[in-house]
Amino acid sequence: MTERRYSFPNAAFTSCIFNQSLDTFLRTLPASFVILTDENVFNANPGLFAEKETVVIPAGEENKVQSTVDSIIEKLLQADIDKTSYLVGVGGGVVTDMAGYVASVYKRGMHLALFPTSILAMVDASLGGKNGVDVGMYKNMVGTVYQPEYIVFDFQFLNSLPEEEWVNGFAEIIKHACICDLSLFELLEQTTLHNIRQDPTWVASLIERNVEIKMGIVTRDEFEKADRKLLNFGHTLGHAIEKLHHIPHGHAISVGMVAACTLSEKINGLHFSESKRIISLLTKYHLPVDIETDYSRVFEVLKRDKKREGKHIHFVLLDKIGAAHAEPVSLDFLQQHLKDLV
Amino acid sequence: MTERRYSFPNAAFTSCIFNQSLDTFLRTLPASFVILTDENVFNANPGLFAEKETVVIPAGEENKVQSTVDSIIEKLLQADIDKTSYLVGVGGGVVTDMAGYVASVYKRGMHLALFPTSILAMVDASLGGKNGVDVGMYKNMVGTVYQPEYIVFDFQFLNSLPEEEWVNGFAEIIKHACICDLSLFELLEQTTLHNIRQDPTWVASLIERNVEIKMGIVTRDEFEKADRKLLNFGHTLGHAIEKLHHIPHGHAISVGMVAACTLSEKINGLHFSESKRIISLLTKYHLPVDIETDYSRVFEVLKRDKKREGKHIHFVLLDKIGAAHAEPVSLDFLQQHLKDLV
Repeated sequence: MTERRYSFPNAAFTSCIFNQSLDTFLRTLPASFVILTDENVFNANPGLFAEKETVVIPAGEENKVQSTVDSIIEKLLQADIDKTSYLVGVGGGVVTDMAGYVASVYKRGMHLALFPTSILAMVDASLGGKNGVDVGMYKNMVGTVYQPEYIVFDFQFLNSLPEEEWVNGFAEIIKHACICDLSLFELLEQTTLHNIRQDPTWVASLIERNVEIKMGIVTRDEFEKADRKLLNFGHTLGHAIEKLHHIPHGHAISVGMVAACTLSEKINGLHFSESKRIISLLTKYHLPVDIETDYSRVFEVLKRDKKREGKHIHFVLLDKIGAAHAEPVSLDFLQQHLKDLV
Repeated sequence: MTERRYSFPNAAFTSCIFNQSLDTFLRTLPASFVILTDENVFNANPGLFAEKETVVIPAGEENKVQSTVDSIIEKLLQADIDKTSYLVGVGGGVVTDMAGYVASVYKRGMHLALFPTSILAMVDASLGGKNGVDVGMYKNMVGTVYQPEYIVFDFQFLNSLPEEEWVNGFAEIIKHACICDLSLFELLEQTTLHNIRQDPTWVASLIERNVEIKMGIVTRDEFEKADRKLLNFGHTLGHAIEKLHHIPHGHAISVGMVAACTLSEKINGLHFSESKRIISLLTKYHLPVDIETDYSRVFEVLKRDKKREGKHIHFVLLDKIGAAHAEPVSLDFLQQHLKDLV
């Protein structure tokens, strides 16, 4: 077990604990707790939740909605959970988002610990405190920024993770490499997903490196005034595509990253050879790089993006592999060029 | 117009602007806005909202629920409101609570300005960032602490405020006097509600004094680790009674304050002459000091109070008029003595 503690400017902190089981973690927790998980994780790990107060929600992004939040809150009230208890979210990104949101509003804020069980949740969703609830077609329209006190990584969970979930998670790893870590990008170019999966030490160190990247960014800029924006690389068009086509998050942001590369070529002079390298890497990790879509519907969803300010959307553009910046791009420009992007 | 700026430790600030109209305020606002108000305020001030983007909710505490939040969010999305806009809550405590909560979760946080129109909202509900949504029998079970950037006071609104709303608001003013301002208590003893209402200058200075009291406390202790707890004087039993009997908030906390005085006599040695003075003052301001109730049901609601921690509830006890402290009181003790309290 190793522990890394990240401090936020307002004196909050998040402790990342690597290689610890849920049972060991819960034994050391200094207060009572209630677990939140989904049906998939619950059914796949029957012994894990025995004799622990557990709220189980249905699995899947389509359940990341207010009615699920309402039902969790009702169960917490029925179980007389007070605000000094920990809500421990055990699962993928949907569970960690729901746990974060519920913990932030239940009795105006209860303690929160996260236990990500997928690559995506380990390198992205569980980190940095952002949570979200979808409203209709629009992702994360409601949410808060609420830091977990603990994020616990038990890499054993990855043993049973299906292939498509590995692919899904690597989209965010490649994103990190693109925006700020050229040497990680090169490392990924030199190996394959198959090779990485064969080597648990490799997997653990890769995840720890990505935790370090994201926590470094979010502790410097918790409320997305500056560098945290960069983590949205690929996510603006990605979210629109995800909602319209109901494809996995990683697939959608892979397509979104390619679109953002094309936009970076147009606006920012990104060299096309850099885009090509990114497309090759995404393809190598089994991620899609384009999609047949209805451009007018993509634009309709895009207009309602959280990052829109008036007639502009803050878009993350790549300068080169390993360096990016955010700048406002006009909706008109996007509408005009959307066909060339995806 | 006078402006007083209060700073929070995390660099957030709230600017309290006294004697300014809604129109003047909105003209100076540096961004676009959408107004949230209720049917009563909307219908009573027909000209005020003309040609302004306005979301109107039904009036009354029974609408301080999640379904109202959902409908507000839907309307904000339909109107394409982005997170750089201000949500401007114009109304009493229900509206300022709903505005605060929605602003804190809409797109993970939009700008917030409050425009309290009742005494209660001016001296209490709009101040300090706490908001809440009721769940079933339980008040404010869901909520956040989210500071408005502006709180604007237009005392003109009080001209049409009904008598019972004045009485309602004075419960919180007397609460402030009890916990930390003996000279305010004496001032209130020496006059009457009728006299105060005759004199707009008196009213304005009384409200400003109460704003100063509450903002002083909440800026020193935003997250209720210490002195902010004192503002809950009368509110623990008060909330239970409010929910069970559907009586106005001020009436309920008046009964709650008398109960807390009796408890303070038992636990804390508060002299009974102090309780008697408080009962006299509440009565003088037309507030009830007892109620016929079902003790077992009061206890059931009490058990689910947000301030419960395990087998205790943090209760605010009076040392003397003008001085109070919070301490954990066991649920067993409360159950046993409930009949003597209310």
